[in-house]
Amino acid sequence: MSDSLSTIATTLRDAKTIAVASHVRPDGDSIGSIVALGRSLALAGKTVHIISEDEVPGNLTFLPGTELIQRADGQALDIDVAVALDTATKPRLGDRVNGCMGKAPLLVNIDHHGTNPQYGHLNFIDISYPATGEIVYELLSHHGFPMDDGIRQNLFAAISTDTGSFQYDNTSPRTHRIVAEMMEQGLDTAELARSLYQSHPLRRTLLLKALLNEMQLTCDGRIASWALTMETQKAVQMEPGDTEGLIDSLRTIEGVIAAVIFEDMPDGKIRISARSKDPRLDVSKVCAEFGGGGHRMAAGARMPGPIATAEARFFDSLQNEIKRLS
Amino acid sequence: MSDSLSTIATTLRDAKTIAVASHVRPDGDSIGSIVALGRSLALAGKTVHIISEDEVPGNLTFLPGTELIQRADGQALDIDVAVALDTATKPRLGDRVNGCMGKAPLLVNIDHHGTNPQYGHLNFIDISYPATGEIVYELLSHHGFPMDDGIRQNLFAAISTDTGSFQYDNTSPRTHRIVAEMMEQGLDTAELARSLYQSHPLRRTLLLKALLNEMQLTCDGRIASWALTMETQKAVQMEPGDTEGLIDSLRTIEGVIAAVIFEDMPDGKIRISARSKDPRLDVSKVCAEFGGGGHRMAAGARMPGPIATAEARFFDSLQNEIKRLS
Ligand SMILES: [Mn+2]
Ligand SMILES: [Mn+2]
Repeated sequence: MSDSLSTIATTLRDAKTIAVASHVRPDGDSIGSIVALGRSLALAGKTVHIISEDEVPGNLTFLPGTELIQRADGQALDIDVAVALDTATKPRLGDRVNGCMGKAPLLVNIDHHGTNPQYGHLNFIDISYPATGEIVYELLSHHGFPMDDGIRQNLFAAISTDTGSFQYDNTSPRTHRIVAEMMEQGLDTAELARSLYQSHPLRRTLLLKALLNEMQLTCDGRIASWALTMETQKAVQMEPGDTEGLIDSLRTIEGVIAAVIFEDMPDGKIRISARSKDPRLDVSKVCAEFGGGGHRMAAGARMPGPIATAEARFFDSLQNEIKRLS
Repeated sequence: MSDSLSTIATTLRDAKTIAVASHVRPDGDSIGSIVALGRSLALAGKTVHIISEDEVPGNLTFLPGTELIQRADGQALDIDVAVALDTATKPRLGDRVNGCMGKAPLLVNIDHHGTNPQYGHLNFIDISYPATGEIVYELLSHHGFPMDDGIRQNLFAAISTDTGSFQYDNTSPRTHRIVAEMMEQGLDTAELARSLYQSHPLRRTLLLKALLNEMQLTCDGRIASWALTMETQKAVQMEPGDTEGLIDSLRTIEGVIAAVIFEDMPDGKIRISARSKDPRLDVSKVCAEFGGGGHRMAAGARMPGPIATAEARFFDSLQNEIKRLS
């Protein structure tokens, strides 16, 4: 059972000092959501700490307010309420963020991942929202919290990136109506789309080139995959955020129903990102077999290396899932 | 002065036999608009001819109703009303379409191009619409014409392609609200987005790979260019439409202000496509020097071959234009 947004709104209104955070390796939805909520609460007169385990990806630093995000140092903050946004499990907040939030008497957990085990004292988990940013929009706009253009920019970034520019199945009439409302309040969505999608560092082009030169089509062309090795990451001097959306280049190939990227991590583990293009194929199920999770059409997991071993194990499970379709 | 949509609606309601057409080399907006209006009028009991000078591009044939489009044969049709959609000038309908429509006592001209000289007997020209499909949606839904899922699919294709999936400046709150309405009526926009954007033939991926392997960054990284040779075209068995949007992979690189593709044509000429990312850089001016034209930010030209000669001449002029900026 979820708590209502009005219960959460009341809790936030009653608090004086609040910390807001999201998951490790933040994306557009997590950054947009924490900045939007944090800025609104600050405008409402609260003392706000917007904290993150990891750095803001370079492709999102153009968003106003991201400069307010502090890297978590692990020291417990003296706060009334901690808010976790877009974070499916508590450990996904990161060790240092959990340290910072550890003494909060109240943890609020707002998310759109169905697997979220409701680890907060108050929880609003609703998978009908394509992005946590869409929940934050309703929390702010329906419950009288301040909203300005910078906040709207962050909410749009959250919603637009988590819906693939309104192309994914999670996009709903509500999503479009919220964007319409924000535009009527003055939001320039075209300018944001240019910043979000129409400018990449050359590094990112070099990564795409490596992907196209090295990608594999298997399972009769139904699986497209790529191994992003540590060598390639070093060769292009990869930075966080550079891989954002790269998987779409695999997913869009005609006949492909599953796209997978295997990425060497500094700790020797392999990060798996999987996408489905067939609504009958649930990649989160495959990822769950390896301790991961996510959504039907977009999921991830971490496996022990090396890449070749992870690939063999993951493909084995994925191919079984694909065989069930026919 | 535009005529009102209700005047046009009355005219269409009073007609028994109607021809609907759009411009040569049709795109998503033109195909979606003529099929949507044609199908609705047929459901309303009219005898309808949906005609086109050129073939439906392969990437749009998945749209229901496109099989009803007839290639114009130039023979005058016995019709009460002819409707031109999304067509900025009468000649752009094509010679054979103009032949088919030549005996119509009434020509209705519905378009969103500001340069449209109102060549119809009734004209609705409004540049606040990002797509002609958005005008057709209002014509049908506000004036009681039949609408079904197939019609909505075509209208969505028209709106989505002409707005770059809601990313271009022409996207308005009205655009998002119309999409929300169509979704509430049952439209599956994610399925349409998959067909429109998330499925390219492997040929197209191979072209992108060639582009990334062969592209040149010159003029201190301000020009990104690619020579698409006849050899590459043959190697991937390129078909018309395969290059659509490829130039964006050059344009989106950070620091690039001009993206250019030089393409070997079967007649030995070189087709140049140029894009600017800096509003001060007018690529149509450079293209005009070689007998081409277009808009400030997107233009083209044809030059004598071979590619190396065309490149040298074009770059000479483009670099001069770039030097003027600083
Ligand atoms: Mn999210
Ligand atoms: Mn158009």
